[in-house]
Amino acid sequence: MAGSILGNIFRISTWGESHGKAIGVVVDGCPAGLELSEVDIQPFLNRRKPGQSIYSTPRKEDDTVEILSGVFEGKTTGTPISMIVYNKTQQSKDYSEIASYYRPGHADYTFDAKYGFRDYRGGGRSSGRETIARVAAGAVAIKILNQLGITFTTYTKSIGNISIDYEKFDKDEIFNNKLYMPDADAAAKAGEYVVQMTKEHDSVGGCVEAIIQGVPAGLGDTVFEKLDANLAKALMSIGAVKCVEIGDGIAVSTMVGSENNDGFTLTNNSHITKISNHAGGVLGGMSDGSDIVLRATFKATPSILKTQNTVNKSNEEIEISIQGRHDPIVVPRAVVVVEAMAGITILDALLQNMTATMAGIKKFYQ
Amino acid sequence: MAGSILGNIFRISTWGESHGKAIGVVVDGCPAGLELSEVDIQPFLNRRKPGQSIYSTPRKEDDTVEILSGVFEGKTTGTPISMIVYNKTQQSKDYSEIASYYRPGHADYTFDAKYGFRDYRGGGRSSGRETIARVAAGAVAIKILNQLGITFTTYTKSIGNISIDYEKFDKDEIFNNKLYMPDADAAAKAGEYVVQMTKEHDSVGGCVEAIIQGVPAGLGDTVFEKLDANLAKALMSIGAVKCVEIGDGIAVSTMVGSENNDGFTLTNNSHITKISNHAGGVLGGMSDGSDIVLRATFKATPSILKTQNTVNKSNEEIEISIQGRHDPIVVPRAVVVVEAMAGITILDALLQNMTATMAGIKKFYQ
Amino acid sequence: MAGSILGNIFRISTWGESHGKAIGVVVDGCPAGLELSEVDIQPFLNRRKPGQSIYSTPRKEDDTVEILSGVFEGKTTGTPISMIVYNKTQQSKDYSEIASYYRPGHADYTFDAKYGFRDYRGGGRSSGRETIARVAAGAVAIKILNQLGITFTTYTKSIGNISIDYEKFDKDEIFNNKLYMPDADAAAKAGEYVVQMTKEHDSVGGCVEAIIQGVPAGLGDTVFEKLDANLAKALMSIGAVKCVEIGDGIAVSTMVGSENNDGFTLTNNSHITKISNHAGGVLGGMSDGSDIVLRATFKATPSILKTQNTVNKSNEEIEISIQGRHDPIVVPRAVVVVEAMAGITILDALLQNMTATMAGIKKFYQ
Amino acid sequence: MAGSILGNIFRISTWGESHGKAIGVVVDGCPAGLELSEVDIQPFLNRRKPGQSIYSTPRKEDDTVEILSGVFEGKTTGTPISMIVYNKTQQSKDYSEIASYYRPGHADYTFDAKYGFRDYRGGGRSSGRETIARVAAGAVAIKILNQLGITFTTYTKSIGNISIDYEKFDKDEIFNNKLYMPDADAAAKAGEYVVQMTKEHDSVGGCVEAIIQGVPAGLGDTVFEKLDANLAKALMSIGAVKCVEIGDGIAVSTMVGSENNDGFTLTNNSHITKISNHAGGVLGGMSDGSDIVLRATFKATPSILKTQNTVNKSNEEIEISIQGRHDPIVVPRAVVVVEAMAGITILDALLQNMTATMAGIKKFYQ
Repeated sequence: MAGSILGNIFRISTWGESHGKAIGVVVDGCPAGLELSEVDIQPFLNRRKPGQSIYSTPRKEDDTVEILSGVFEGKTTGTPISMIVYNKTQQSKDYSEIASYYRPGHADYTFDAKYGFRDYRGGGRSSGRETIARVAAGAVAIKILNQLGITFTTYTKSIGNISIDYEKFDKDEIFNNKLYMPDADAAAKAGEYVVQMTKEHDSVGGCVEAIIQGVPAGLGDTVFEKLDANLAKALMSIGAVKCVEIGDGIAVSTMVGSENNDGFTLTNNSHITKISNHAGGVLGGMSDGSDIVLRATFKATPSILKTQNTVNKSNEEIEISIQGRHDPIVVPRAVVVVEAMAGITILDALLQNMTATMAGIKKFYQ
Repeated sequence: MAGSILGNIFRISTWGESHGKAIGVVVDGCPAGLELSEVDIQPFLNRRKPGQSIYSTPRKEDDTVEILSGVFEGKTTGTPISMIVYNKTQQSKDYSEIASYYRPGHADYTFDAKYGFRDYRGGGRSSGRETIARVAAGAVAIKILNQLGITFTTYTKSIGNISIDYEKFDKDEIFNNKLYMPDADAAAKAGEYVVQMTKEHDSVGGCVEAIIQGVPAGLGDTVFEKLDANLAKALMSIGAVKCVEIGDGIAVSTMVGSENNDGFTLTNNSHITKISNHAGGVLGGMSDGSDIVLRATFKATPSILKTQNTVNKSNEEIEISIQGRHDPIVVPRAVVVVEAMAGITILDALLQNMTATMAGIKKFYQ
Repeated sequence: MAGSILGNIFRISTWGESHGKAIGVVVDGCPAGLELSEVDIQPFLNRRKPGQSIYSTPRKEDDTVEILSGVFEGKTTGTPISMIVYNKTQQSKDYSEIASYYRPGHADYTFDAKYGFRDYRGGGRSSGRETIARVAAGAVAIKILNQLGITFTTYTKSIGNISIDYEKFDKDEIFNNKLYMPDADAAAKAGEYVVQMTKEHDSVGGCVEAIIQGVPAGLGDTVFEKLDANLAKALMSIGAVKCVEIGDGIAVSTMVGSENNDGFTLTNNSHITKISNHAGGVLGGMSDGSDIVLRATFKATPSILKTQNTVNKSNEEIEISIQGRHDPIVVPRAVVVVEAMAGITILDALLQNMTATMAGIKKFYQ
Repeated sequence: MAGSILGNIFRISTWGESHGKAIGVVVDGCPAGLELSEVDIQPFLNRRKPGQSIYSTPRKEDDTVEILSGVFEGKTTGTPISMIVYNKTQQSKDYSEIASYYRPGHADYTFDAKYGFRDYRGGGRSSGRETIARVAAGAVAIKILNQLGITFTTYTKSIGNISIDYEKFDKDEIFNNKLYMPDADAAAKAGEYVVQMTKEHDSVGGCVEAIIQGVPAGLGDTVFEKLDANLAKALMSIGAVKCVEIGDGIAVSTMVGSENNDGFTLTNNSHITKISNHAGGVLGGMSDGSDIVLRATFKATPSILKTQNTVNKSNEEIEISIQGRHDPIVVPRAVVVVEAMAGITILDALLQNMTATMAGIKKFYQ
């Protein structure tokens, strides 16, 4: 079944396996006239590249993006933008062991259950490398949104039980530490924790948060195409995510209405705004003009050195220890993936929103 | 923008406002040959009807469903099933006040921001009555799934900070108390809490959990159409939901890999199964044959008697107290809505899954 | 499979059988702020009503439309517009004979082949009454397009081998004769021909043509979502249509390039226009600012009194003569159906076109 | 707007410009377990390659396809299949003249009208090279259909007013002449005609016909997703097509019901079949088990040496003569494109059809 296409107006189609020839994405529906080159995409890909710190796999991947279509004389033409990243550093290692059993926490078993067999090399299509395509497409979406005054601040909120302290929130710090945390102290503690768990042959989970500013009110819809519903799908579709929150998220279960409601007030220049933002910028499925706040919780990397029980393809119960170059935590590299998915979703809603009223349509076509 | 249509193969199209003539849904893509009549739908609608306890609005609504098409001689024909519920009990009350300001926590402001005006009577399209259409469609989906051995257990997991005790989990109790909790003690305490908060002119949030059994392994997809991603969208699209979890959900952020991974083992009759189910029945976006476990967190009802700050349409800051017949908590009535949305999503994945392999296709067409 | 939903932004969902309770359509994605009431829809439905002349079935159907949602205080709200037409005049006739065999030229056999059984009463979902829903939705689309200066002239071009003479083309004549031909002489001859064939217990085919003026250049897309491709689908989806043409259509097969190409020239006020319009207003899949010209060829009504060979459900070869109130020709009543389908398609392209360029997006959101 | 994606279950996403780096397609939703390699695709691409006869441009293009993903150990895995054809033979010619004016019959003007500018090199996205992607995807679809017993016979039916004689129909002859006509005499005459028109600096149109055998009854749907409606879209979306016919097509306008209806009869082994096939294998939007017969009419190549009138970008009326290596006729190279588009459409309907009945679903999941 077709499951690698996302979006309605700004529509992306991704492809590629971890150890195939390449990973890529086709962006269909990108508006014409956007200045675009690889220089706009590469910095986003660099944020997810492995091998940049002790917190990620030492595996080096070049991950250089190339635009194959849809751009002419430096500008998008309105036709599909095909982007490709060649897989260069796959080791010709022996995958026969990994092919023989089902790794706990991975898609090995479900892939076989669905399709009867799988490309087991490095996780195949279920590899984290699949997110390269998301990030490349997201970079295009975010460039467009930036030109409309919409900006993204995305970071690691917590690792294990070490969370950032919002009192110490420092946006500039995000790119200062390899964990992308906006709080240097938390980053230091979290770093120690990751190192410790790595020593214990284990892995670690955490949470990514995004704050999106400048989104005009009214994006999204009232029923199924709610902006928060599509953001939830976009984030939950990232491998290892098990929880998605908007605004106060799970905390609302213990809040009463008078705590949770955001009263409306007027700004100095008489614009309507909210006194607080428990809602996270979405009311009734539509953006309300406040910051959009969302979080994705990631499970710990399932590939661990520690001994685990599983079953092999000969239907025998066995014990395994997964060797190899694995990230002890996916969260830092996932920060830009969350940002990309949010960007793609918001851009699609923003484009669809242009057709919402007769007044807007008449103004456009007058 | 079109936002009231959901699904790919089993596709539903909903319509209707709280105080319009009716609420309805068209189910397109329902397989032919299903025995179906209003008797299959009405019990689901009755579970969401108001006026059944002190925990919901005393407003009485009949909410009788009528099937208008797609069924012939008691069986579905494969053509669209149109279902309608007439709005019978709208009071011809004066809505001029509510029309004049923006209720905190509601879609009033975002509706005006998007469309320039709104049907303000009872919330219009953003009313909880919109979920009637979801539940009617969900009843059809769940009837189909039941015939394939897939069953749903959906209930209130927590209200405020009163959560069920899984040691006392009693499935039969769910329909014994008006809060739909599978733990009589928790239900009693939660009931008291709701009553207390109502007295304080406030409202209460909570959490709904669903356990879905019998889902075959392999439903869903690897990238964007992950089963959990579509479940997240389906649940987050329900009004008042701010968080969606799969399996251990938000708790995975503090679990290490060796805790969170579910090892594989063999059943007595040598089938592959998981030792534990932290994953909640989904691995790599595809069902793994274990129970699917998901949760939606609902905010407290935004309509409260307590005084709130807001802005009116004359751009004045005002204080309001929302009168009228409002649920102090939406959670109990939302239980069946969560079940319906999960059912619609899983059925759609199950139908799409039929086309996944050449072997399956050849067997079908041989 | 879901096959009763059409469109991307302006999306319609139709339902209903010939002899069920009602026929209806839900229009999702209609822009807010359009003044709309039943008065806008009914005249379109009246153009397809039977019983208005000797050229159509004497069966009287009221076909009164009612709007159930999506309109508030006389204007569309941006939420789904549900429209319903109750089936009032079904005779409780005996359908046991028609249920027992497969009528040539009808969907009886294919319905059974696909679904295993069918609602055989009056053709069920495959009845021409299904087009009521298309026409109701088309009336909304055309009202919007009219407000943007886009107009439709749709008429019967030919019946049997009697075609209109373009030298005598008289737009006002279209509504003067019951065959909707813009040429009184042709209409008179065609009328005689229909009467003669009816006497011979036979039926007649023909062609509907539409000329759409005022469509701005640039609607549609370059590859699959070409405007003419979507128009072809929209028209071919009308029952009994076997050929769709754009511009010179089938005649281009014998034209050389120098005949068929439309040179560009300048109008008096220096706008670019075409010298001729062999292309029918579409170049490379996008509207070119000229009149859009399209045609649909309809086969003769398959229900005829004349004896035909067929097979019954007992797998016997039999001879049948189809009694009952059938149109000897569907063309005149189909004129408004062609117009409706063209309107729905063009509006959807027009809405999507708003997102085509960064310049347009920036202007909209500035 | 996103216009390069087609299909519901078997979904293709194409990209690439004539003079960009490459042309490609991503096939999402291809069932797993199909043996597939470039050897299956290349013969289809070879059928559309230019430079193979005096009837096509002498421009040589290698058009070698490479599979980049979705195939493992020789079989499809169920994940997206990315295929690429590099553009190798673009001459670094001077396009400044062609960039300066609007070629009649081409998309130059409409591209500028929609997007504000265009990739003018060789037609950019509107080049016939775009069909490489369709043909590559179609080759995959047709391989699947072949394994289910469905076969395609596609050929040139007519060029100018020279049509094949069905009395002389010789399937083997199709690949014997460079015009792909199943009648050697007609091919000889047509060849002379093309040569003569080329000498006159003009170009020629024609018609492609496809006969598809072995399609099971019941594919398609009753309303908008009619099989013939989707075939019409698929064919009309091919550049230069101005008319699509199913079965007797345009001829039905002058046929009476008793001529056009296909009576049902029984085969020797008591299967239901049709006496004739005026319907072209589709009744009520669903395949009826007979051969599917469809035709697409192509206009003459718009690029001609003959002098034409047009307008340049300085808004001046000018005369032009288009130099360069152009096909005098697109029809022979378009034969395989029609076959590919029909294959993609029928496969998608065949996959969707699997979910049509409860009996089929239960059998699949039992």
